[in-house]
Amino acid sequence: MARPTAVPLDRFELPRGFAAAGVACGLKPSGRPDVALLVAEPGWSAAGLFTTNRVVAAPVVWDRERLATHAGSIRAVIANSGCANACTGARGDADTRRTAERVAARLGCAPEQVLVLSTGVIGVPLDMTKLERGIGAAFERLAGPPDTNGETVHAGAVRAIMTTDTVPKTAAATVRLASGPVEIRGFAKGAGMIHPGMATMLAVVATDAALDAARLRRLLAGACERSFNRVSVDGDMSTNDTLLLLASGAAGSVAPADEPAFAAGLEAVCVSLARQIAADGEGATRLVEVTVSGAASEKDAHRVADAIACSPLFKTAVHGGDPNWGRVLAAAGASGVAFDPAVASLRFGADERAIEVVRGGVRAAYQEAEAAARLRDDPVEVRLDLGAGTAEATVWTCDFSAAYVSINADYTT
Amino acid sequence: MARPTAVPLDRFELPRGFAAAGVACGLKPSGRPDVALLVAEPGWSAAGLFTTNRVVAAPVVWDRERLATHAGSIRAVIANSGCANACTGARGDADTRRTAERVAARLGCAPEQVLVLSTGVIGVPLDMTKLERGIGAAFERLAGPPDTNGETVHAGAVRAIMTTDTVPKTAAATVRLASGPVEIRGFAKGAGMIHPGMATMLAVVATDAALDAARLRRLLAGACERSFNRVSVDGDMSTNDTLLLLASGAAGSVAPADEPAFAAGLEAVCVSLARQIAADGEGATRLVEVTVSGAASEKDAHRVADAIACSPLFKTAVHGGDPNWGRVLAAAGASGVAFDPAVASLRFGADERAIEVVRGGVRAAYQEAEAAARLRDDPVEVRLDLGAGTAEATVWTCDFSAAYVSINADYTT
Repeated sequence: MARPTAVPLDRFELPRGFAAAGVACGLKPSGRPDVALLVAEPGWSAAGLFTTNRVVAAPVVWDRERLATHAGSIRAVIANSGCANACTGARGDADTRRTAERVAARLGCAPEQVLVLSTGVIGVPLDMTKLERGIGAAFERLAGPPDTNGETVHAGAVRAIMTTDTVPKTAAATVRLASGPVEIRGFAKGAGMIHPGMATMLAVVATDAALDAARLRRLLAGACERSFNRVSVDGDMSTNDTLLLLASGAAGSVAPADEPAFAAGLEAVCVSLARQIAADGEGATRLVEVTVSGAASEKDAHRVADAIACSPLFKTAVHGGDPNWGRVLAAAGASGVAFDPAVASLRFGADERAIEVVRGGVRAAYQEAEAAARLRDDPVEVRLDLGAGTAEATVWTCDFSAAYVSINADYTT
Repeated sequence: MARPTAVPLDRFELPRGFAAAGVACGLKPSGRPDVALLVAEPGWSAAGLFTTNRVVAAPVVWDRERLATHAGSIRAVIANSGCANACTGARGDADTRRTAERVAARLGCAPEQVLVLSTGVIGVPLDMTKLERGIGAAFERLAGPPDTNGETVHAGAVRAIMTTDTVPKTAAATVRLASGPVEIRGFAKGAGMIHPGMATMLAVVATDAALDAARLRRLLAGACERSFNRVSVDGDMSTNDTLLLLASGAAGSVAPADEPAFAAGLEAVCVSLARQIAADGEGATRLVEVTVSGAASEKDAHRVADAIACSPLFKTAVHGGDPNWGRVLAAAGASGVAFDPAVASLRFGADERAIEVVRGGVRAAYQEAEAAARLRDDPVEVRLDLGAGTAEATVWTCDFSAAYVSINADYTT
């Protein structure tokens, strides 16, 4: 399957069985969209993966509980940006419940059938007056005409979860099953506080395939492992990470023989979103794809690739177009994975343009200017072969610029 | 014991039994000092701690072997900056041996009695012609007059190991033992690629106390654990980290009853050097002291403090004077240590000036401007109480500025 790329917002639509819209209610001081609503008739199967942070936002606690009891009958997802509703104590829990209740009242369902997502500043309570107004407006918007900016109504939901993102992140794939084609389409936000375990963002992936909650959960875990769990911007881990997979069942069911094809489509959509998140990392000027091959296990390969992708020294060198490969080896060596540097090799650049900079653990014969040029490609491809086996893994990150610092030094002020 | 501060270079001297000097031999393009030499008559006991990176520089391999066989009779330390001699393969090993041989030939001792330190760019072979000339010049300098710049001859060794350091790092303590006073004096370099495990720098601590190599090793491990292993600039780990403790025995021996006093003096010198390294972190404008208390164990406290000190989001917030305490809790929550955020409290600022920003896991009553002012103190003090026990640990780091990026984006170019 070709790698899905972002879908322009003038034609972004979730699959059959999903209505979606976004509005601005004033939670973002900028006045940009900050409330996203997805609704279903009569309901979806759903699965979710959440931050592994010990400090979790109220909506994460709520959603985990809901997916334990109501994963087969979710009726809506309500999301807000501008406020993470994290570290807000009992008040935060009550605000999340009230948010779900307000949505449920409009749909005539139980609050437990409503999932809640929040993203934004930590430690500040939600302004519920604004949010409740936003919920009402979002319901009206669902039935409204296309946006005057030429974007679809669904695109409003994509915009409404963005925070420091500079571009919207969407992906779509069509999978041909025995029962006919099914669609898998998703959107995500995330630019800072991005690190695997799981990746640090909000993402919603929707399909019209018919799949029960247990299968969704299994499929989502598999796709996440090689996509959102392989992206790092700054090594920081959010309190609000949530990845949802929703299935409306408006199209056909996925026969067991078709499951690998569906899983591949789902992974492709998740990888596309994860790459878009890395490419739009705070202050990033280039996507960086770090592949570690020749590892004894995929876990080892992932761990080494992650250590490289998280190294500020490597990422600043990429930013400066400085082929300082010693930093790549130093980061790999600090990963905790055993390997023999004397048999390692390292290349900068993709495929036939690749320049080998290290062979057998020492500098290879290469021209400095050529290697530097490969670090100015977009994406930058870095491939380290450990010479210790046949497993490999890729991690996506971005270069590290002074703009990251200025974005984050003044985030709340 | 009062915390030792840096000793000005117009009066920095290693203790009795140590001669030291530094010269410039051209390994640094800037023409600054780049070869340091320490010599002993008749010899020192020595202990060393080294990087835990899998990718280690040739001199680290050499020194580990020497300390296994000759820790009781070390005659010299030769150090260079401007080239790390890492990832240089068999040639790197041969160059390190030749360096030791050249020094040994001057002293009439075995090469195995000479320790070698290198720091600088990774992946480039040493220019041995320059270095050998530098060794000769350093020996001449040992016997020479004070520097024309008013600094001591010993100060030349301090300057010769500096790389991106903006200030020299020295510390001294006098410990009064039953046998009389002994001196502990040290110097260090390190500004980037700084992370515990062990910390990422070169440091030499010298004492005139009489201690055998086994005791030195034990004392050094204890002091390092609470000093160099508690400092982080960027989470990157060097290939060349080396911490040496050398004892000339020119003063009295350390009786068992005196050992705690000596250990305290050694720890104080190491903590002072570690703090100086953090304060001079690449691009740093302020030292940051992160203390985690109320932990179930010192290991837990260290791990949480380390997670906070390594968070780019926290460190950029400090740089911007933004009291974004959610990032502190988010980093703590991602540390892997179990704690209940609902009983955690957080303060910014030292002692009576401290502002409580979190109580019981939620925002405390405080004025934003006051909290912001505490983040502009130097050092910045951050104290997180987990409410889970009585153990505590402090980690030193620095704020994270755009200058870090510009320093590292163009390091080798």
